[in-house]
Amino acid sequence: MFSLTIRRHFMIAHSLPREVFGPAQALHGATFVAEVTFRRRALNEDAIVLDIGAAGGIVEGVLAGLNYTNLDEHPDFAGKLSTTEALAEYIARAVAGQIKDDADGRELAGLDVTVRENPDAWASYSLDLSA
Amino acid sequence: MFSLTIRRHFMIAHSLPREVFGPAQALHGATFVAEVTFRRRALNEDAIVLDIGAAGGIVEGVLAGLNYTNLDEHPDFAGKLSTTEALAEYIARAVAGQIKDDADGRELAGLDVTVRENPDAWASYSLDLSA
Amino acid sequence: MFSLTIRRHFMIAHSLPREVFGPAQALHGATFVAEVTFRRRALNEDAIVLDIGAAGGIVEGVLAGLNYTNLDEHPDFAGKLSTTEALAEYIARAVAGQIKDDADGRELAGLDVTVRENPDAWASYSLDLSA
Amino acid sequence: MFSLTIRRHFMIAHSLPREVFGPAQALHGATFVAEVTFRRRALNEDAIVLDIGAAGGIVEGVLAGLNYTNLDEHPDFAGKLSTTEALAEYIARAVAGQIKDDADGRELAGLDVTVRENPDAWASYSLDLSA
Amino acid sequence: MFSLTIRRHFMIAHSLPREVFGPAQALHGATFVAEVTFRRRALNEDAIVLDIGAAGGIVEGVLAGLNYTNLDEHPDFAGKLSTTEALAEYIARAVAGQIKDDADGRELAGLDVTVRENPDAWASYSLDLSA
Amino acid sequence: MFSLTIRRHFMIAHSLPREVFGPAQALHGATFVAEVTFRRRALNEDAIVLDIGAAGGIVEGVLAGLNYTNLDEHPDFAGKLSTTEALAEYIARAVAGQIKDDADGRELAGLDVTVRENPDAWASYSLDLSA
Repeated sequence: MFSLTIRRHFMIAHSLPREVFGPAQALHGATFVAEVTFRRRALNEDAIVLDIGAAGGIVEGVLAGLNYTNLDEHPDFAGKLSTTEALAEYIARAVAGQIKDDADGRELAGLDVTVRENPDAWASYSLDLSA
Repeated sequence: MFSLTIRRHFMIAHSLPREVFGPAQALHGATFVAEVTFRRRALNEDAIVLDIGAAGGIVEGVLAGLNYTNLDEHPDFAGKLSTTEALAEYIARAVAGQIKDDADGRELAGLDVTVRENPDAWASYSLDLSA
Repeated sequence: MFSLTIRRHFMIAHSLPREVFGPAQALHGATFVAEVTFRRRALNEDAIVLDIGAAGGIVEGVLAGLNYTNLDEHPDFAGKLSTTEALAEYIARAVAGQIKDDADGRELAGLDVTVRENPDAWASYSLDLSA
Repeated sequence: MFSLTIRRHFMIAHSLPREVFGPAQALHGATFVAEVTFRRRALNEDAIVLDIGAAGGIVEGVLAGLNYTNLDEHPDFAGKLSTTEALAEYIARAVAGQIKDDADGRELAGLDVTVRENPDAWASYSLDLSA
Repeated sequence: MFSLTIRRHFMIAHSLPREVFGPAQALHGATFVAEVTFRRRALNEDAIVLDIGAAGGIVEGVLAGLNYTNLDEHPDFAGKLSTTEALAEYIARAVAGQIKDDADGRELAGLDVTVRENPDAWASYSLDLSA
Repeated sequence: MFSLTIRRHFMIAHSLPREVFGPAQALHGATFVAEVTFRRRALNEDAIVLDIGAAGGIVEGVLAGLNYTNLDEHPDFAGKLSTTEALAEYIARAVAGQIKDDADGRELAGLDVTVRENPDAWASYSLDLSA
């Protein structure tokens, strides 16, 4: 199995209005560093998983929809909690949607998204695309 | 699959009295940076793998039993080698023991523990909790 | 010259309502990683710059006043821009205020505060305490 | 499952003469940081995956064949593209060849090689050795 | 004193044809991570050292002239050694040239450029602009 | 001003038998990552601060005298506290002693040594060699 990972970041405001989140129930924010991994069983004829420029563009496009926003008012998170785990899944599904019609995208076995919220904590989501 | 990772560190003295360890047979020490990953197939109703505060508290509690000790005299390592690999397994099993009676803990699919001993070497242990 | 550096982080929401800040004029947020460096010409009789536990406590106390807040509503930033540079100065002056009556604190030559806003950008402020 | 990871780096020149690579079609170069992970179901009698010194020596030996070379003229890449993905596979197979006759090497379940080309992009290859 | 630092990277081929460079006399390459620090005694009226977007654009413009090139054939290094130290000075002087006619640029006390060639080695150059 | 920095690590056991050190009064240990910076006003005729191989060898030689030891029994620390700050000064003075008779060494303006004890704390010592 091969993989290619692209790292980018985005900066948002949000609140997590459930008792379990303690002080994070207040409006605060985060720099989220996202690492998006594209997995594939065999390389394409250019000996790559995916064109790194195209992959970077897709990731940047998805993150641009979040960057410099207040997730409490973001339509995609209406009625939902924007936890680090939920953001990892959101990014994975959005990236998958962008690449599913691409020749290399159809060959992907899966996507892994890690979202780092601070130096001491991060969350990940793995999406199986082989079915 | 989702995961949440908590990073903490601890500082210990130890020796590794087998010929294969060369100069590490002498009493020396290490700053071990532990990354404890909690894996779960679906998020709980708060859209998280586990309460990050509770998870951090459990990891800190386990590492507190090691921090600022000489592992050569630590009862849990009597007659055992405290290699980086063995420490990863020890931490994983201790964390698993702490969470097994917790509602979210029962939903975990597994734990991964990575223990970094210096910038150029680290070891990991994966514990399956799905059985 | 000796120095001791303590690293901690805090997570905030804010906006930067000036045209030069482009998309950062909107309410967003950041994980700020603060590195506070205490400088001293000679070590104390315990061969340290400052007690690392006390220093960590002071830094944590200062950052606790910012963590999980919306700086747009924080009294210390009323009518002020909470840029990364401004936060570095704010933290340095607050830490200096906390240590000025301490025996070791009086011996400090200066403080440097670096505040990292994302992996690709950070700001610093150096405060001379020797006068 | 246990693993041990060794990190080393190497510096090479190369070109990627396919249209998809854009400006990387020109002769340029990279510092590649390689993380080689050795996976094993159970530890050996010394409570390790592999002797860290021996593992480091094997990785260094493989990378020494690449370090300070122009991969465009390297016999192992004649007629092949030296993409980051291809380098990850090359290193994994070369390391596997070196350890296959070793007592601990025969116990390995697999190898994972991650090759980082810059702070924002890296590729990996996983080699199953359990068959 | 305040400072703002921008980090970017570039990938080049080159050789260092002097005996002291040993194996680096051969054509090889590097990923150079450049950290450009802008120093200023007081902030501007927007509470910043420099517009971070403008500063990033200037650094990217300078590095674009180096990225994906073979420095052995680069006109700016004709007859010169492209050591890490020399690259740090080159970048500092090129950035200084770009900002000297800018209102904020004229207020700068200096520039520091750190160029990282691998995880274990880096070089820096400090340029005084206060004269 | 130019500088070259070399990073290496060493692993030791020690105790800090003063009340101020709290739990670190017990025998424990650390992985210390040392960053040794060599400063020089002008480059030599090879456009470098110092031969990076020679500089690395000197740093490794100094750290080899500490690596895998118990500093409580190390003759150079008899009757002294082996704090991170004290180690930074020790390494700086030992490196300075090694290079003072070297042609490039005589041109150095100073040495800076940073010793990182864990991801959240480090100490530095600057040695002026220009006098």
